[in-house]
Order: sequence, then C-alpha cells, then structure tokens
Amino acid sequence: MHQQHETITCNTHGTGLYEITGAVSSFVSISGINDGLLTLLVQHTSASLTIQENADPDVRDDLIDALDRLAPQSRNLYRHTAEGLDDMPAHIKTALTDTSLSIPIMAGVMRLGTWQGIYLAEHRIHPHTRCIAAHIIGL
Amino acid sequence: MHQQHETITCNTHGTGLYEITGAVSSFVSISGINDGLLTLLVQHTSASLTIQENADPDVRDDLIDALDRLAPQSRNLYRHTAEGLDDMPAHIKTALTDTSLSIPIMAGVMRLGTWQGIYLAEHRIHPHTRCIAAHIIGL
Amino acid sequence: MHQQHETITCNTHGTGLYEITGAVSSFVSISGINDGLLTLLVQHTSASLTIQENADPDVRDDLIDALDRLAPQSRNLYRHTAEGLDDMPAHIKTALTDTSLSIPIMAGVMRLGTWQGIYLAEHRIHPHTRCIAAHIIGL
Repeated sequence: MHQQHETITCNTHGTGLYEITGAVSSFVSISGINDGLLTLLVQHTSASLTIQENADPDVRDDLIDALDRLAPQSRNLYRHTAEGLDDMPAHIKTALTDTSLSIPIMAGVMRLGTWQGIYLAEHRIHPHTRCIAAHIIGL
Repeated sequence: MHQQHETITCNTHGTGLYEITGAVSSFVSISGINDGLLTLLVQHTSASLTIQENADPDVRDDLIDALDRLAPQSRNLYRHTAEGLDDMPAHIKTALTDTSLSIPIMAGVMRLGTWQGIYLAEHRIHPHTRCIAAHIIGL
Repeated sequence: MHQQHETITCNTHGTGLYEITGAVSSFVSISGINDGLLTLLVQHTSASLTIQENADPDVRDDLIDALDRLAPQSRNLYRHTAEGLDDMPAHIKTALTDTSLSIPIMAGVMRLGTWQGIYLAEHRIHPHTRCIAAHIIGL
C-alpha cells in the first residue's frame, strides 16, 4: 500500500466555478496508484469544492446565482463585514457546498460519472490563489 | 491491507429519498473487511447522497420540500432550462447535499448512529437508474 | 499501514458551532500516524460538521443565523413537528452542511489551512452529548 500527497493550486479571478479535473487527474496518474482512494481538501473558508455538470457552462453560472440568492451580500444581515461585503456570504456558501471530497480510483482513473467535473468554487470577488490538499492511498 | 470496489445501483421513480443502507451494508459484509474505511460517491450531478433520520418518513418528505424551497422550479431563475424545469434545481440540490460520504468500519459494520440511514436523493421527477461507486479499504 | 478508531464527544448547550480541532488533533497525535488520512463522521441527524474560519467569532454567529434563514422554525412548513419546532430545521441544516469530513495527515498534522477550524454544529436548542466517529489510516 502506498500514499502520496500534493498541493493543487488554482488561480481565481472573481466569483465562479474553476474546473480542476485535469490537475487532479494528473496527480492520480503521476502517483502511479491504480487502485485506491483519492481525497481533496480545500484549505480555505471562502472557497470550496463541488462536483458539477461539465457539459453546459450555463449550469455553473446558474449555480453561482443560486448561491447568491441563498447567501446574499447585504449590509444588514451580517455582523462580520470588516473583510468586505462578499466575505460572510463566501463563508456561508463554503458551508453549503463541499470542503472535502473522496473519490475511488479504479484502473488508474477516478470513478467519476460521464458528466461529472471537479470544480473549485471561488466565492470572493477579488483574485486569489487557492490551495487544495490532495492525498491518494492504494496500490 | 485489502481493498474492494463495487457499483451500487438505485432505481428511482420520481423525486425523493431512497434508502440504500441495506445495499451498502451488504457490500461491507461481502468485502470481508472488519476494520477500515468505506467511501461512497454518487456518479451523477442531479442526484446526491445524504445521511438522514431513518425513523419518521415525514422527515424525508419535509427535507424534499425544504430543498424545493431553496432551489425552486422556475422559468425565470435559470439559463439552463433545455433539459426540463426540474434539471437546474436538481444540480443546485446536489451541490447543497453530499456527493461523497466517508464512513469508518469497525467490527465489520458501519459506525453509523442509531437513527442514521444512508439515502440516495433523487432530484429529478422522471425515473432514473442511479449508480454509486463504493470503495472499502482495510483489514 | 496502521489504523485507529476513536469516538470524540462534544457536550453542547444550545445551537451553535463548537470547535473540536483540539480534540481531533489529540487523536491524530496519539495514533502515532505521520502520513495518512483522517475521517470524521458525526453520528447524529440533527448536528453536523463544518470547517469554518477560526478567527472572528462573528463568522460562527452569522453562519448560525444564515442556516436559520434557510431552514426557519415554523409550525406551517413541516409535517415532522412532534419532537419540537427546532427538530426538522435541524435535520435540514444537517443535510446542508457536512456529515463526514476527510482530512489528509502529513508530518503528523492535519493539512488544514491557516484559518480553518473543525466545528461540531449543534442545530438543536437543548443540550446534547454529540459523538463523532474518528478513523485514521496510514503509516
């Protein structure tokens, strides 16, 4: 049984979903593990992970809009406003989506469905470099 | 250390929570692993996983209603409407609930609480065959 | 490759976020595993897990308020009311946040970001003893 760690980085330029499926696939390939378990953990509290449809880009825009409706920017709703009006909504959106993801690896590839892509969800409006801790264990 | 993979299928007939605890338990038993880690990954973006109360069925109906309020069907809210009015809400509900679940295995059984059941949440209105990638590692 | 199990308990006294990072860190240290994967699973359906900012306590209060807006207490919204008006909202909030978390371990510590803390989210108003199943695998 072997293990490997990596840090996958994602440079964001505003709120949106950024596909990281390719970067994650590369890590799986380079690890040489054919049969095992992959774990991803976003190392931030105002960005998150989500697995979403990788076909129609409208899905990503609609998801971003939906999260905005669920956690709107507002001067009246939050105590925590010192870091910008988009900060507290970003924490809420992070709580509502995923911080960690676990994906089985079989025959050297992730067992994702046909239409599934892995996305870093940036919830802040300014550019950030986001880090995702990646770990794989297996044979 | 051993590993095993499986695909658990769930035939759905409309929006709702479908219990898969029994099917998952069977996989754990058949694997012969007594001490380890179980991972489940739904292979779709309009169905998801959730661990919920397995006692009062009203809880499942109330949860489905709550998700409908959070991601309502509407001709005006979404760009992505070509696959049906229930499709984009299904993607949003998937993002809000779980795509992967990780469950420790001890003495050959899942370490679930007394009232916890594992459910496939179908967010589309038409019947589907849903696949869940299952993986177990341990001794 | 080694494994270890633990049950981390958290005594709650009303709705709120209770930090368990220290208790989880202790389990990782005592396990003696330097390189591996940690899994946490809350064993309840009206309390959950979340990784949130550990700096400004206002973030936790704002998150609790946001969850209250998304799943309000109401006599009219739910069928399941026999266990108290806060029970069904607690199940919904559990579904919206995390039931399990997966965290890579490197050099004997969790690969969390600087501002990330692990929290037990209590969604009921009365005191409870909450149990979190913890598992670690690695070397």
